[in-house]
Amino acid sequence: MEPLRVAVIGAGYWGPNLARNFRSCPDWDLVAVCDLDADRARRVVGPRSTVDIMTSTQELLARDDVDAVAVATPARTHAALGLAALEAGKHVLVEKPLADHGAAARRLVTRAAELGRVLMVDHTFCYTPPVLKIRELIADGSLGDIHFVDSVRINLGLVQPDVDVFWDLAPHDLSILDFILPGGLVPTGVAAQGADPLGAGRACVGYLTLPLADGAIAHVHVNWLSPTKIRQMVIGGSKRTVVWDDLAPQQRLTVYDRGVDLGDTLPDRTTARVSYRLGDAWAPAMPEREALGVMVAEFAAAIHQGRAPLTDGRAGLRVLDVLESTSLSLADGGRMVGAVGHEVLKARQPVGSGATA
Amino acid sequence: MEPLRVAVIGAGYWGPNLARNFRSCPDWDLVAVCDLDADRARRVVGPRSTVDIMTSTQELLARDDVDAVAVATPARTHAALGLAALEAGKHVLVEKPLADHGAAARRLVTRAAELGRVLMVDHTFCYTPPVLKIRELIADGSLGDIHFVDSVRINLGLVQPDVDVFWDLAPHDLSILDFILPGGLVPTGVAAQGADPLGAGRACVGYLTLPLADGAIAHVHVNWLSPTKIRQMVIGGSKRTVVWDDLAPQQRLTVYDRGVDLGDTLPDRTTARVSYRLGDAWAPAMPEREALGVMVAEFAAAIHQGRAPLTDGRAGLRVLDVLESTSLSLADGGRMVGAVGHEVLKARQPVGSGATA
Amino acid sequence: MEPLRVAVIGAGYWGPNLARNFRSCPDWDLVAVCDLDADRARRVVGPRSTVDIMTSTQELLARDDVDAVAVATPARTHAALGLAALEAGKHVLVEKPLADHGAAARRLVTRAAELGRVLMVDHTFCYTPPVLKIRELIADGSLGDIHFVDSVRINLGLVQPDVDVFWDLAPHDLSILDFILPGGLVPTGVAAQGADPLGAGRACVGYLTLPLADGAIAHVHVNWLSPTKIRQMVIGGSKRTVVWDDLAPQQRLTVYDRGVDLGDTLPDRTTARVSYRLGDAWAPAMPEREALGVMVAEFAAAIHQGRAPLTDGRAGLRVLDVLESTSLSLADGGRMVGAVGHEVLKARQPVGSGATA
Amino acid sequence: MEPLRVAVIGAGYWGPNLARNFRSCPDWDLVAVCDLDADRARRVVGPRSTVDIMTSTQELLARDDVDAVAVATPARTHAALGLAALEAGKHVLVEKPLADHGAAARRLVTRAAELGRVLMVDHTFCYTPPVLKIRELIADGSLGDIHFVDSVRINLGLVQPDVDVFWDLAPHDLSILDFILPGGLVPTGVAAQGADPLGAGRACVGYLTLPLADGAIAHVHVNWLSPTKIRQMVIGGSKRTVVWDDLAPQQRLTVYDRGVDLGDTLPDRTTARVSYRLGDAWAPAMPEREALGVMVAEFAAAIHQGRAPLTDGRAGLRVLDVLESTSLSLADGGRMVGAVGHEVLKARQPVGSGATA
Repeated sequence: MEPLRVAVIGAGYWGPNLARNFRSCPDWDLVAVCDLDADRARRVVGPRSTVDIMTSTQELLARDDVDAVAVATPARTHAALGLAALEAGKHVLVEKPLADHGAAARRLVTRAAELGRVLMVDHTFCYTPPVLKIRELIADGSLGDIHFVDSVRINLGLVQPDVDVFWDLAPHDLSILDFILPGGLVPTGVAAQGADPLGAGRACVGYLTLPLADGAIAHVHVNWLSPTKIRQMVIGGSKRTVVWDDLAPQQRLTVYDRGVDLGDTLPDRTTARVSYRLGDAWAPAMPEREALGVMVAEFAAAIHQGRAPLTDGRAGLRVLDVLESTSLSLADGGRMVGAVGHEVLKARQPVGSGATA
Repeated sequence: MEPLRVAVIGAGYWGPNLARNFRSCPDWDLVAVCDLDADRARRVVGPRSTVDIMTSTQELLARDDVDAVAVATPARTHAALGLAALEAGKHVLVEKPLADHGAAARRLVTRAAELGRVLMVDHTFCYTPPVLKIRELIADGSLGDIHFVDSVRINLGLVQPDVDVFWDLAPHDLSILDFILPGGLVPTGVAAQGADPLGAGRACVGYLTLPLADGAIAHVHVNWLSPTKIRQMVIGGSKRTVVWDDLAPQQRLTVYDRGVDLGDTLPDRTTARVSYRLGDAWAPAMPEREALGVMVAEFAAAIHQGRAPLTDGRAGLRVLDVLESTSLSLADGGRMVGAVGHEVLKARQPVGSGATA
Repeated sequence: MEPLRVAVIGAGYWGPNLARNFRSCPDWDLVAVCDLDADRARRVVGPRSTVDIMTSTQELLARDDVDAVAVATPARTHAALGLAALEAGKHVLVEKPLADHGAAARRLVTRAAELGRVLMVDHTFCYTPPVLKIRELIADGSLGDIHFVDSVRINLGLVQPDVDVFWDLAPHDLSILDFILPGGLVPTGVAAQGADPLGAGRACVGYLTLPLADGAIAHVHVNWLSPTKIRQMVIGGSKRTVVWDDLAPQQRLTVYDRGVDLGDTLPDRTTARVSYRLGDAWAPAMPEREALGVMVAEFAAAIHQGRAPLTDGRAGLRVLDVLESTSLSLADGGRMVGAVGHEVLKARQPVGSGATA
Repeated sequence: MEPLRVAVIGAGYWGPNLARNFRSCPDWDLVAVCDLDADRARRVVGPRSTVDIMTSTQELLARDDVDAVAVATPARTHAALGLAALEAGKHVLVEKPLADHGAAARRLVTRAAELGRVLMVDHTFCYTPPVLKIRELIADGSLGDIHFVDSVRINLGLVQPDVDVFWDLAPHDLSILDFILPGGLVPTGVAAQGADPLGAGRACVGYLTLPLADGAIAHVHVNWLSPTKIRQMVIGGSKRTVVWDDLAPQQRLTVYDRGVDLGDTLPDRTTARVSYRLGDAWAPAMPEREALGVMVAEFAAAIHQGRAPLTDGRAGLRVLDVLESTSLSLADGGRMVGAVGHEVLKARQPVGSGATA
């Protein structure tokens, strides 16, 4: 099959990573890198290269020899650029977040469906081997019902000039939750607590509580002020529990065949007898693969097969809706608020409905 | 100096540990173990022992040759037993929590002061080498102002028949917070989120948010359903940050000379420039000592010196007040509630004021 | 069953641990502690105890109400004391090493068999949950043939006045090897390399190579000069490999279902094709039990059942023989020397043959 | 400064890594990749590239617009290709080992000096941040005299068709030793023990003992059969000790201010009193940099400054000499053999003497 032709828009922090992966993936032919700063774009492709350097997105989108674009510009420009690209008939990959507010993201999702173009959001972590394996373990019933998910993502981070720690870091956790939970991330509410002990003008430490259906709960801790990096997620199920420690390169995932069972024959639950399983732990073998490489291959596959990608526009929208609710809760002293945009959140996009090649 | 004579009341889970440490500490002479079940008490002292076995606390408290008692009975009996012991002129050590509700605990604290007896609560973790070192690092200014404390205490725990996960596990975290924070634990509010995915009738997963003065925050995660044990506390300061991983026996404490500084000359804080220090990390050498041994020695020292012990009744009371606020918040959907009993919480008991020998 | 009556001889470093475990084990009644220094012996039993304090081993061995003795005196006295105790009709437990030279140890083994008494050596590590599990995994064929064992035991150790690092630390590794290898530790040779960079007069860093049958190899690294503690053993088998990291309390044992297979159909082994299995890893659940408690229970069981204990005198002898060969090799520049006392080493003592109650 | 023009010879396993780093380093301009298999070479540079693809080294070396070549072909071809390149006036970087035998390597070193060309060996690990830091800590006296170095490098490795585990893995350890020890790696002898439990026709498990001057010792454990990866080096000094755990990404280096001191006033060393320092541990901050990037920059700097590179031909020769002694010892049952080529080993190449631009 002929490689698809792609251009990367934005040569800042993330664009070079996308460019590198498009270049090394046989499904793709990187034809251009576009940035207002031509020198910056040139540094992305390096010397002795014939990849085009462009400074006008308008000219880029007008080209016939470009099948798809990857948008890696500041968040506030995602929606407009994405929309223009869709209207120009391109398939579109957008760096997370899909947009800087829900309404714009909704328009993108709707327009992509109408135009039959693939709209994908770059939820990179979903394509790492541990997350793919966790998704599989949940989908095949190995964990049983999900009881709780606790996610910690803390490190010494750049205090961002425009967004707080929730908008900077939590999209990773939320996109992973959306990816692994069978129905996507559809919490029954959102409560957020933040702190700004530095006086930076925005939350630098944040805690996010997301009640799920059937008494389950998800919780996210994001923090810019921690000098030690912790990237840990515990996914507790009725049958087994998975611990993902992303900084333990030799054993990122551990599946525990241990847990608590409630004797369900007792009439009175408040005096229920519980029993414990104390089985072995198990570390599944996983390939070492670069997530971005898997992600760009999925982008190509979705286009070729005329189907929604694993992290489609609706996934991006669900994440964005929770982020917006987070800001509402934070502004209201941590009150539990209902998630907005509920009708959109409810269902994953059915396979095949989102795009035709 | 002659050893002090002590009796342990309660031969269940914790009493044997107290008995063992009183026996091996030269400051103490364990004269009796008291339990309704004489066989159980006998098993605590073992064969070929002349330690008395008693089944009546009344008879025990009437003895002249007993200077102090340690109460290790169910929580609901702590207050009555403690009060009786104080009235009988004994110094009293109470297993945590000090009582099962704040009013009873207040009476204990007041009465101990009036009677000039030492009232101590067994906040065991405060006497571990890491906690003693953290307290020292905060007290001597090594960490600077405390910006955040994040505490995680999760493991496969016994679902308790009478208390939820907050009352079972959080006393450890709260007593440590009370011990290391310069003014004790006096949060400006308490918000709690819990989940009961098992349907056990009480929270098995809990998150506790405690805003502190000056924009700082403390947060506690307790969980009975996790098959993997995590005991980790991050204490972030304006100068340095400590990470305590209690399950890393070779390096429990790490002090990071890294952090984020805010350029404070800028007129507009919302556009503040931040800078980063990326210094070395440092693992202080610490002795390996059994916390309970240090605790019983502190109990003896407080009696001999006529001073309040490091974890006195007021510390127990402050912890209890936060626990009661936790239950209030939980019952009210996670609302941020003000801490009760504020006047009592405000100050640590001045040294020397709590007891006279 | 009536508890057996035991006395501990020696109240120095190890005796108190033995005494504590005999006291808390229902199979045993600790009747006396014997030491030349009565005060030291008294400190072992503590106050309010009726355990006898003795200073004469002669008087102790003459007592009719003592079934067994545990010898925890300096190594050079083990043989004489053990022999006297056997002649007095006692069952004998000896702290490692069994004796300070092979000939004396041989006499002990022979005499115990003739007198029908249980002779046990306190190879404590063999009774830890990880070593018991490793033994089981090898015995039931889970690992396949053993290809290599690599053992590292390094820490900041007391430079001993009388023995080098091999005699101080390697008995642990050698006793474990003897315990887990199906036929006991019977190397085809012993080669030792040591270094004394401090000028302490004896090896402080040591490496021990032990070729085993069928091309397998065992290797031991012992070191007094390392400020970091490492206790790690890798046991590589033809089917699976176990890694034991004794300082990882949450996951001491990991069984890897990975390995290298040699295509055995090829006529020429030097050009053999190899294949790799990259399966999962697996951490068996293990109880947390104090090894010394298991060890004293095994001592009682062996006496009651009239059988050899798991770590009998012959195990102690095999370990001692390798240590003597180690010293020979070291004195000869690291030359590979044959193990001495081969006939004794060859076979484990058959169950039931070593003692009658 | 104009970038230097370089060609990579060999597009197999290592060549692509070299090519990638030359391309992304501003000191270099990658002009050609040369391989007998043009398709393989083409895959290295990727699509839309104007880097030349060549299949003849003769034609490559004849080009005027190539200042330097990097040789990443099989080891047996290193010497001939390197020599041809030097004769053609090119600066030469050779993948380790420098050659497949010492005599050939000697010729390379001599000829490079005569021709005034830079001859560098790609001892990649020497350019990792931990090794650079260890070298600095030894050079500035922080560790004191080196007492022992223990290096472990084990993992499930490809059983090589042509070399044993020593020649495959130990060059890494030996090159690091050569780099960090003040006088380079000049052991007083070499003893090797190997095992081939698979029957693969060559050692798959290997232990290497290298006595150093003044009673110090270095030891290397290499192993292809271990399913778990261990990359650990302990460097024990008279003042401090460093532990490098390359698989602990958060804290690769730990410096321990602990150790054993010998009381040197005692007349009789065999009864020497020792004392212990139990200070803190310290984890130096290090940048995360790709070693190969640092290495290619050092190659350029050496050429520009007309000096020997940090890992010059003589370093490669010292490593090769130890490897040859290893094979001798192995063939002779582990006998301690003197290192060959002593005169060459003795001194590091003085700065500036090895090359002129």
